[in-house]
Amino acid sequence: MSILVVGSVAYDTVSTPHGKVQDALGGSATYFSAAAALFAPVRIVAVVGEDFDHSQLEFLRERGVDTSGIVVEPGATFRWSGSYGAEMGDATTLDTQLNVFQEFRPSIPDTHRREPFVFLANIDPELQLAVLEQVEKPRLVVCDTMNFWISGKRRELEALLQRVDVFVLNETEARDLAGESNPVRAARRILALGPSRVVIKLGEYGVLLVAEDGIFRLPAFPVEDVRDPTGAGDTFAGGFVGYLAETGDLSFEGLHRALLAGTVSASFNVEAFSLDRLREIDRARVQERCRELERIAGWAWSQRLVGQGG
Amino acid sequence: MSILVVGSVAYDTVSTPHGKVQDALGGSATYFSAAAALFAPVRIVAVVGEDFDHSQLEFLRERGVDTSGIVVEPGATFRWSGSYGAEMGDATTLDTQLNVFQEFRPSIPDTHRREPFVFLANIDPELQLAVLEQVEKPRLVVCDTMNFWISGKRRELEALLQRVDVFVLNETEARDLAGESNPVRAARRILALGPSRVVIKLGEYGVLLVAEDGIFRLPAFPVEDVRDPTGAGDTFAGGFVGYLAETGDLSFEGLHRALLAGTVSASFNVEAFSLDRLREIDRARVQERCRELERIAGWAWSQRLVGQGG
Repeated sequence: MSILVVGSVAYDTVSTPHGKVQDALGGSATYFSAAAALFAPVRIVAVVGEDFDHSQLEFLRERGVDTSGIVVEPGATFRWSGSYGAEMGDATTLDTQLNVFQEFRPSIPDTHRREPFVFLANIDPELQLAVLEQVEKPRLVVCDTMNFWISGKRRELEALLQRVDVFVLNETEARDLAGESNPVRAARRILALGPSRVVIKLGEYGVLLVAEDGIFRLPAFPVEDVRDPTGAGDTFAGGFVGYLAETGDLSFEGLHRALLAGTVSASFNVEAFSLDRLREIDRARVQERCRELERIAGWAWSQRLVGQGG
Repeated sequence: MSILVVGSVAYDTVSTPHGKVQDALGGSATYFSAAAALFAPVRIVAVVGEDFDHSQLEFLRERGVDTSGIVVEPGATFRWSGSYGAEMGDATTLDTQLNVFQEFRPSIPDTHRREPFVFLANIDPELQLAVLEQVEKPRLVVCDTMNFWISGKRRELEALLQRVDVFVLNETEARDLAGESNPVRAARRILALGPSRVVIKLGEYGVLLVAEDGIFRLPAFPVEDVRDPTGAGDTFAGGFVGYLAETGDLSFEGLHRALLAGTVSASFNVEAFSLDRLREIDRARVQERCRELERIAGWAWSQRLVGQGG
């Protein structure tokens, strides 16, 4: 089954202790698609400026991404600049130039309105809601956000959440949105706002899924050589939604496996700058590392032990 | 099989957003024993002052802890005072009065020298080494430490590590000891110092085991009501070593299950001040929550799924 993603396509200038890239390909929709397309067909809706080099998306098209919904507007492409310290935690934003993204009002082409899976990357919740008004009964709506909208457009975000199935956000965002520092309690409060599943991203510590049907906790893949964390959250979402679209299994346990696929996708992304690592991996390579994470998380051997002792 | 623990028995004054206790029972050997004794017999070697109320350890004796190795010295019992902020992360130490602990030179009674499992709680590495000189070929030596010794007695700590099987430390300590911020790489450097297994405690995010035989990562039990994190690390070590002593299974996979038992033991401890929660739980209650964590970590259902898709 195929996926519609609405988000940004951008140029990023990023420095980490491992180096620096200038005006490298980035953007939430780009990272998402690169991972999701390993599992299922993807259609992007986004905006770029006249300076955008469309040949940079050729590898996505080869992977089954429909880029025809990326419109070109007069002006420059969205640019973000940030730097990471030695701990590689959150980036310090040095500069944001919205450029053509400032006036982005996503218009979903007729050909794109019947995708069963919809991912609303982190943009203004009013625009996310406007996307949902244009699509026809998707089977699953997954949505991301950021602190900027939680503090600045809470009412709009809450209206949106009533129409979202899976809400993905990080630990700080969950705390701010719920007004509660315990992640499980925060997630329960967010469930009360509408979504049936809340996924809290814990960065290098993995993800927490809280749903009406239970709690699931997956560690991250222990990457030994983190070079650039930019796009990790969107890549995670790409692998997660991609896997769900591939299998169509939206059960609680189906989500566990999709979270594994998302986690593994993100683990590749952080190993290189921009989309360099995502560009070179394939479905088989992801599958191989999924097996490795299964072993690390105890899934692979537990069948012999569950229910015995301890 | 039984366990020897050498560490502190103390009185703690602790404040958290949930309340405050004054001169409440604490100490690394106390927390460790309360958890370990749910699984296997424990003998404590420690020192207290003349002010110590020995009836407070009655519940440990009922649980199978031999407290005859706790010596009384003239003076006051070790006292620690700390406070936790809203995030319940690391405590801010407000006051430390070593008192009789200042001159503690652990002398292991003849009756205590043949325990197959030895846990060296966080004390001066010179004293930890002195303990190992007094015991007879233990089957497993597990050791904890703290930043104070890593910076102040590195040479002694490194000498000790050559005689330790499992080294348990937290993420910051691992970073400082190894001079490396990536936890897996840090653990590998520590393995090179002697231990065959390194367990890095990630607090609310769980534990990471790095060994010659592989990597294992377990999330923490998602406690919704954390009231006092004091003693969580020692309680974790207690459940971990206790489980190993109960089963005698020191294989890599045996350690996974022991880490589960330790993690669950710690999850109980943080639900109340001092040892109040550890006092009331039993082996069956621990077992029940182990099953719950197996479900949360995906062990319980993965037998049906491992090797399929993803």
